[in-house]
Amino acid sequence: MGWSRKDLVAIRDLDAAEIVMILDTAASLQEIAGRDIKKVPALRGKTVVNLFYEASTRTRTSFEIAGKWLSADVVNFSAGGSSTAKGESFIDTARNIAAMSPDVVVVRHSSSGAAALLARTLDCAVVNAGDGAHEHPTQALLDLLTVRERKGHLDGLSVAIVGDVAHSRVARSNIHGMRKLGLSVTVAGPPTLIPPFVQELGVKVAYRLEDAIRDVDVIMMLRLQHERMTGGLIPSLREYSRTWGLTLDRLRAHARPDVLIMHPGPVNRGIELSPEVADGPYSVILDQVAKGVAVRMAVLYLLGGSKGGDQA
Amino acid sequence: MGWSRKDLVAIRDLDAAEIVMILDTAASLQEIAGRDIKKVPALRGKTVVNLFYEASTRTRTSFEIAGKWLSADVVNFSAGGSSTAKGESFIDTARNIAAMSPDVVVVRHSSSGAAALLARTLDCAVVNAGDGAHEHPTQALLDLLTVRERKGHLDGLSVAIVGDVAHSRVARSNIHGMRKLGLSVTVAGPPTLIPPFVQELGVKVAYRLEDAIRDVDVIMMLRLQHERMTGGLIPSLREYSRTWGLTLDRLRAHARPDVLIMHPGPVNRGIELSPEVADGPYSVILDQVAKGVAVRMAVLYLLGGSKGGDQA
Amino acid sequence: MGWSRKDLVAIRDLDAAEIVMILDTAASLQEIAGRDIKKVPALRGKTVVNLFYEASTRTRTSFEIAGKWLSADVVNFSAGGSSTAKGESFIDTARNIAAMSPDVVVVRHSSSGAAALLARTLDCAVVNAGDGAHEHPTQALLDLLTVRERKGHLDGLSVAIVGDVAHSRVARSNIHGMRKLGLSVTVAGPPTLIPPFVQELGVKVAYRLEDAIRDVDVIMMLRLQHERMTGGLIPSLREYSRTWGLTLDRLRAHARPDVLIMHPGPVNRGIELSPEVADGPYSVILDQVAKGVAVRMAVLYLLGGSKGGDQA
Repeated sequence: MGWSRKDLVAIRDLDAAEIVMILDTAASLQEIAGRDIKKVPALRGKTVVNLFYEASTRTRTSFEIAGKWLSADVVNFSAGGSSTAKGESFIDTARNIAAMSPDVVVVRHSSSGAAALLARTLDCAVVNAGDGAHEHPTQALLDLLTVRERKGHLDGLSVAIVGDVAHSRVARSNIHGMRKLGLSVTVAGPPTLIPPFVQELGVKVAYRLEDAIRDVDVIMMLRLQHERMTGGLIPSLREYSRTWGLTLDRLRAHARPDVLIMHPGPVNRGIELSPEVADGPYSVILDQVAKGVAVRMAVLYLLGGSKGGDQA
Repeated sequence: MGWSRKDLVAIRDLDAAEIVMILDTAASLQEIAGRDIKKVPALRGKTVVNLFYEASTRTRTSFEIAGKWLSADVVNFSAGGSSTAKGESFIDTARNIAAMSPDVVVVRHSSSGAAALLARTLDCAVVNAGDGAHEHPTQALLDLLTVRERKGHLDGLSVAIVGDVAHSRVARSNIHGMRKLGLSVTVAGPPTLIPPFVQELGVKVAYRLEDAIRDVDVIMMLRLQHERMTGGLIPSLREYSRTWGLTLDRLRAHARPDVLIMHPGPVNRGIELSPEVADGPYSVILDQVAKGVAVRMAVLYLLGGSKGGDQA
Repeated sequence: MGWSRKDLVAIRDLDAAEIVMILDTAASLQEIAGRDIKKVPALRGKTVVNLFYEASTRTRTSFEIAGKWLSADVVNFSAGGSSTAKGESFIDTARNIAAMSPDVVVVRHSSSGAAALLARTLDCAVVNAGDGAHEHPTQALLDLLTVRERKGHLDGLSVAIVGDVAHSRVARSNIHGMRKLGLSVTVAGPPTLIPPFVQELGVKVAYRLEDAIRDVDVIMMLRLQHERMTGGLIPSLREYSRTWGLTLDRLRAHARPDVLIMHPGPVNRGIELSPEVADGPYSVILDQVAKGVAVRMAVLYLLGGSKGGDQA
């Protein structure tokens, strides 16, 4: 089976076979990172535009490196202070970029649905690099790849996702991806940060950290966004950290000795993760970053090299 | 005849044959945009620096893509917040850049004359990407190319340029280019936005939209700059839009059925153009953007590849 | 002897043979700038990340051009407004970048010691592009290369470094480099801007401009930082300029006719240098900029191409 989608907007849209195809492609491409000459001609003569409406140097850099290793031309279009400042709408800007014949537009935007809108509007491939609280599909894919490599497989694994689940596109993409691949998922966090009806996505809910992390194979700690910290959704940072922060003591007391600790970064050290945990032997955080380049190479390769395919 | 100029500062400097040479070169290069592998080695080993003193991600991106498709190394030098902030003069910054041996410097600056100053000062090729209210030559060239392809020729065509003609480098470059190629040009707009003595450039002036757009082949609507909107030069946005905005009704009532609607972008929707017109069948706005890459490839190719040539 | 260091953090760390090796490498690479095709495959498939925490488009551009001429993939990571804004620490950001497998990280940071910290932490090569008031090694190397080419040799030459020596990483790197190569160095400036114990670095101190510049082969004027100007360390700009500014009259009255005038840029014209001196026949300021690209090519080449080497 070959890849047939024009875009990667949401993990929710994919079936298990498509997710596995991206993971397998990433797994085979990731050895490029270890080569003396990190360059393959796969996307030579293809143009990738990073259209970023939110500051995210880290994700943008990951896509840029992925594109360059595949020999694509990568162009960064940061929307701050330019046409946007001149009052141009998102979709007008995007249509303009598209008129310059890119093969792939990678978009990050603060509005949920921005990537889907772009995918419907543009003829070229669109990759969602995070849209509001909706999805961040390449993050979920790199998380899955990290777990699969560390554990050797994904079958029957259990994952706890802890923190601000309600506002997290990372959690949303991971929940969809993990459920599709048969992992069992428990979400946990203060009631104000757990979305209502989340059980309908096939996940369990825990209201105590200890319950969430007991006997799981993976603990994914979410970043507490600064805007939540001051938005009245948690009583105080100290309170949040005391109740939901993962410390080495808690980890040793309640989690399995072979548990993996993940975090999408950037970490608020001392809030959701203690430094000992973030930098400790359980942590695979930097491995996630490395896998990020591999996953983005895979996505650019599958979408940027595709001819035709379905147009929606 | 070969290309002999070191720089492209102003359409006013070119003769008709030179303009046509750029258009012909762009016409032959534009098929690259449709290729599976958008890459030719024409400028391999050449360095293009985008020296932008005004935010313009769109034009910068167009030059960057053009350069990369020609295999040039493209370096973006955004002047905000750097040496400029440290008090370095424009010409000192430019001399420093030039000391790094670029082949082409593409400059955008808010001061009229900045590009000419640079062209006189630097040994490398200088391309004006817009200098104050002076000129924006590649915009006029892409406009001419768009019209030529849509109409099949340029001979004897008539164009209306509508809006803030007085402050528009786009209008100025187009007036020079169109007059040199024998098109007839009518400018129209509120009296405060029509430059005195504009007739001496060989154009007609209309003071009503209806008069301007009647029987012309092309209507070029200019962007109303935000600074004009609040500068007392127009009574109000609503008034401007009611008098000078191009709506579908007005278009159908007064213009020819085969008229082309152009706009340099970004469009103020609902001000100079109604959305139905901007997105309608008369509009060639996105075609202009696509031709922009072709024209910039042509300019970089002619200037960046030229050996010797006249040094002023 | 081959190059054996993983990093270039400080001139102070190098021995004379290492400095000369970089200069010789730069001298042989600099002819690339004059080629019709400025491109060699030396670093093809290598990734260079410019990690800049201070605005410095000029130095960043120099490294970017150097990397691209060597065929490296160059990625700019400007730390303003991104993960940093999200509260991520410098070292966490750097570890994240490193997880993306760059071959060289070029770092500029306002804190002295930032480059050394990075070099100890990361497995990849680290190049210091300026850290606080500590060092700016590639600047000293380009200065040495400029002098060596202009004078034909470095043996026994004498140099005056004038201005804000206390806060200048350029002065510090140059003092170390010049002393190691046997040049004699005199520093001069207002007492508040001369570091105590500077004589222990093997330099002489002069407290009058005339005394400093008499009979030296090279005068290196330092940039007066704006923050010093308002920080109470000098009585007034006018006073500083009158006492320490280098004018053509002073130059002719006190300096040798074959003296070289250097400045790391950007120049405060009329403050530390009069325009006639900055642009005059003694000035080699733009030559310094050109040599900057050559030196950075040499450093990227030696570090980016090195396999193994000492790991700290």
